[in-house]
Amino acid sequence: MKITNNKPVKIIPLGGLEQIGMNITAIEYEDSIVVIDCGLSFPEDEMLGIDLVIPDVTYLKENADKIKGLVITHGHEDHIGAIPYVEKELNMPIYATKLTMGIIDNKLREHNIIQNVKRKVVRHGQIINLGCFRIEFIRTNHSIADAAALAIYTPAGIIVHTGDFKIDYTPVFGEVIDLQRFAEIGKKGVLALMADSTNVERPGYTQSEKTVGRTFDHLFDDNKDRRIIIATFASNVDRVQQIINSAYKYGRKVVVEGRSMVNIIQTAMELGYINIPDNTLIDIDSIKNYPDEKVVLITTGSQGENMAALSRIAASIHQKISIKPGDVVIFSSNPIPGNEKAVFKVINELEMKGAHVIFQDTHVSGHACQEELKLMYALTKPKYSIPVHGEYRHLKRHAELAVEMGIPKENVKILTTGDVLEISENRFKVVGRVPAQGILVDGLGVGDVGNIVLRDRQHLSQNGLIIVVVTLEKHSNQILAGPDIVSRGFVYVRESESLLDDCRLVVSEALDECLRRNTTDWGRIKGSIKDALSEFLWKRTKRSPMILPIISEV
Amino acid sequence: MKITNNKPVKIIPLGGLEQIGMNITAIEYEDSIVVIDCGLSFPEDEMLGIDLVIPDVTYLKENADKIKGLVITHGHEDHIGAIPYVEKELNMPIYATKLTMGIIDNKLREHNIIQNVKRKVVRHGQIINLGCFRIEFIRTNHSIADAAALAIYTPAGIIVHTGDFKIDYTPVFGEVIDLQRFAEIGKKGVLALMADSTNVERPGYTQSEKTVGRTFDHLFDDNKDRRIIIATFASNVDRVQQIINSAYKYGRKVVVEGRSMVNIIQTAMELGYINIPDNTLIDIDSIKNYPDEKVVLITTGSQGENMAALSRIAASIHQKISIKPGDVVIFSSNPIPGNEKAVFKVINELEMKGAHVIFQDTHVSGHACQEELKLMYALTKPKYSIPVHGEYRHLKRHAELAVEMGIPKENVKILTTGDVLEISENRFKVVGRVPAQGILVDGLGVGDVGNIVLRDRQHLSQNGLIIVVVTLEKHSNQILAGPDIVSRGFVYVRESESLLDDCRLVVSEALDECLRRNTTDWGRIKGSIKDALSEFLWKRTKRSPMILPIISEV
Repeated sequence: MKITNNKPVKIIPLGGLEQIGMNITAIEYEDSIVVIDCGLSFPEDEMLGIDLVIPDVTYLKENADKIKGLVITHGHEDHIGAIPYVEKELNMPIYATKLTMGIIDNKLREHNIIQNVKRKVVRHGQIINLGCFRIEFIRTNHSIADAAALAIYTPAGIIVHTGDFKIDYTPVFGEVIDLQRFAEIGKKGVLALMADSTNVERPGYTQSEKTVGRTFDHLFDDNKDRRIIIATFASNVDRVQQIINSAYKYGRKVVVEGRSMVNIIQTAMELGYINIPDNTLIDIDSIKNYPDEKVVLITTGSQGENMAALSRIAASIHQKISIKPGDVVIFSSNPIPGNEKAVFKVINELEMKGAHVIFQDTHVSGHACQEELKLMYALTKPKYSIPVHGEYRHLKRHAELAVEMGIPKENVKILTTGDVLEISENRFKVVGRVPAQGILVDGLGVGDVGNIVLRDRQHLSQNGLIIVVVTLEKHSNQILAGPDIVSRGFVYVRESESLLDDCRLVVSEALDECLRRNTTDWGRIKGSIKDALSEFLWKRTKRSPMILPIISEV
Repeated sequence: MKITNNKPVKIIPLGGLEQIGMNITAIEYEDSIVVIDCGLSFPEDEMLGIDLVIPDVTYLKENADKIKGLVITHGHEDHIGAIPYVEKELNMPIYATKLTMGIIDNKLREHNIIQNVKRKVVRHGQIINLGCFRIEFIRTNHSIADAAALAIYTPAGIIVHTGDFKIDYTPVFGEVIDLQRFAEIGKKGVLALMADSTNVERPGYTQSEKTVGRTFDHLFDDNKDRRIIIATFASNVDRVQQIINSAYKYGRKVVVEGRSMVNIIQTAMELGYINIPDNTLIDIDSIKNYPDEKVVLITTGSQGENMAALSRIAASIHQKISIKPGDVVIFSSNPIPGNEKAVFKVINELEMKGAHVIFQDTHVSGHACQEELKLMYALTKPKYSIPVHGEYRHLKRHAELAVEMGIPKENVKILTTGDVLEISENRFKVVGRVPAQGILVDGLGVGDVGNIVLRDRQHLSQNGLIIVVVTLEKHSNQILAGPDIVSRGFVYVRESESLLDDCRLVVSEALDECLRRNTTDWGRIKGSIKDALSEFLWKRTKRSPMILPIISEV
């Protein structure tokens, strides 16, 4: 049975393609829109002072009446992190599996909007109706429990969206990905596959999460007389489960430290996604009641994040834990590209304090490698392939893999965030674009920091600033006070008093020149000050601080 | 024959231990000091606006009369980059092998001080006398030709400093590292070994540079009909040689692009360290006279450096080269930790323009892995080990390896930059510290940017600034003009006019309050403005911009 129709459905990625993170995609057909995921991304290096980036949902706001719901594949920040921000503008009912929804609920509670948002927990295998779409949640494996792929039955055909997935034949919690169901849907005929590209550069298979458990056992066995501290991703409940299993087996108590990890483990316990033997979990304050070799601390900070628990422990600014010589610290994680230096900094600090750091072989990825992706293609046999979840280099390699799997080149498309793709049995075409730049969040401000502000921050960060203050007499433009020079972030002032004195001279000359020429326009006076001073400073120091002339009139 | 004496010699690392880069070590005995290497390091992420970091040579300046010379192991920036800065303060005669000296000469010429510095080229195997020391240059292999280890014959015994080294049995240029000589000196009796720690975490052996040449041949063979662009380290002359060899074999012309690479290749040609067949090298401007499949471009930018040639090509801002679909771009390099994101950005940009990027298997390291280090220990059999050239985690792993090689634990010491180590047959002790913080260079300023300036830049970069200007009447303190609010890098002003209006009100109230209380002290008035405004802004925006109240008096 193919559900087909000549009219195409629209696929509109509103984030997540150029950069990792901020996954959100709209699927539209006539008067129905469903939104898949609603993630945030963390700021790029050049986005100074920005806390996070959320998707631009202008297009969804303009079509709010069509939106039937927000369906979520799994509970990672890059798939759910923007929900509170977007729900404040678009009240969409949310559909997700149990653990995923538990994590979303925490967020909505933090933002104090949980009472306004309709939420419905969905089971794997369940199909929901949203407008003209039917959406089936299919069990997958990932580095967080309860992940789902989505089969979206549209009038133009079936779209399979894998979410983030791997194939784990021996998962720690729950069951293996529902390969049979992918096959069954493939047999019906899949119009398009949208699959995870993260690990497409890696050959072979991703290892089972369970292999990490065996490694933990060995490490606990090797270090029976030492305190063990393990850093991992807050949301990797299965990893935490395996650490707890080893701890229990080797007679250790477990402390969980770091706000995000405590929250997620709490939720996972309440919902039955983690199984902690009685009297195993202890409070961080009671750690002192146990000998070192009887405790294990599970903590956030595996990416070297500045304020995370492990970084604070390493820097000796954690209030409750300090490193002792002989401690074993295990990084159960790989650094995400960009975090390497921060991670190495933490490792150096830990080792300087006498810890033994174990950095390798205690992590497996949550994303499918090449052979797993090939299996997904072999099971679903899609007509079209739309690689998702990756930087351009991943999407491109994924497109090549799709072609290797027999999909005609013209049926594979790498989309850009904001593209509007029309797709049906006989159409596969980008027909337009919608606004889809990320919105910067800084403190409470959403979208009030743009390129000009970032450019100013960049300028200030590289060269500092010099403020020139001068008070002029109304009408005559005679100097009543100043010019005074104030600098910040430029040079160490005590060493450069003569430099600032010279600046004052340069400004005075520029002002005199303006007076001589009867220049009374403040804009032009400021321009003269700026030009004279920046030329002088470049010659003298080869630096270009921001120069801000301020004129008061009395 | 052991040259020994009961009086200890001093080893003083003045840089290079906590962070990679900035290698410089003083060896002192009575009235003689020799300095080994004089490198720079590149700024850490938090050193905003800093161009480079050079060593603090206060100790050397205080003992300038003792310094007999500066001996250099090889021509990499982290071993020679600070020479021009330090030579301006300390006129030390420089001793180095031919290519190394050629590269140093370029630097001295750029800084216009070559006429002031005494330089002497040394051959491998040659021994020079510097004060009470004799120093032998021993041939090694590294990722730059003409690298040398140093055997320093001191009255307290022989110190062997490997410099950066690997063991390459089939080097591209020159000969294999002089293992026999290390053995011979080891037989005499080595007091201390100071060896390269960079790759100590890697088991096995570093591959020969020649293996990369074979890979290039395969890649040239596979891509006969495409233009090839290869990015690598400017200073890796052997790598460039191998690319040229493949190019010649496959009938391609070679263009070298990127200032630093052009300079080094020019020097290597003049000194006979690279062998380019006639009519192979062409000018970048004549590239248009050849079909794509007949040229190869060798370029800088393999680390994703912003302004390097490859990054400019990728961003379509290079004046002479633009990417065409089908171009093959090879990264003959690994990203140095911290550069991953920048490298991936360039790869994404290149692939978006249709290039095929090859990122793996065309690089080998220039540093010894574990088995090579073990061989060095087995040949030299030192009494003491002082690991050098690495972050703390490397030094620590190196110390463990030294112990595995039979050196008693108490004879292995991890030094910190600035430590003064006394060493003799019966002494091995840190006896003091000398100043050894890096000096920040920003534009023409050396050392005029310190922690306060960096903290201000950090603050400005994260939150921007708000300037409050008010003019008061002398004596009465009545407000004559203002308060005016100027902001930069804070919020986009058009969207926040009401916010700035509110700021003005808050400041006015704070000023009124001061007047009411007869507060006339400017410091206190400024404090009141700052407190009121920062409290208001934190409540309203959860941000803390720098607040600069400026008061003029008329």
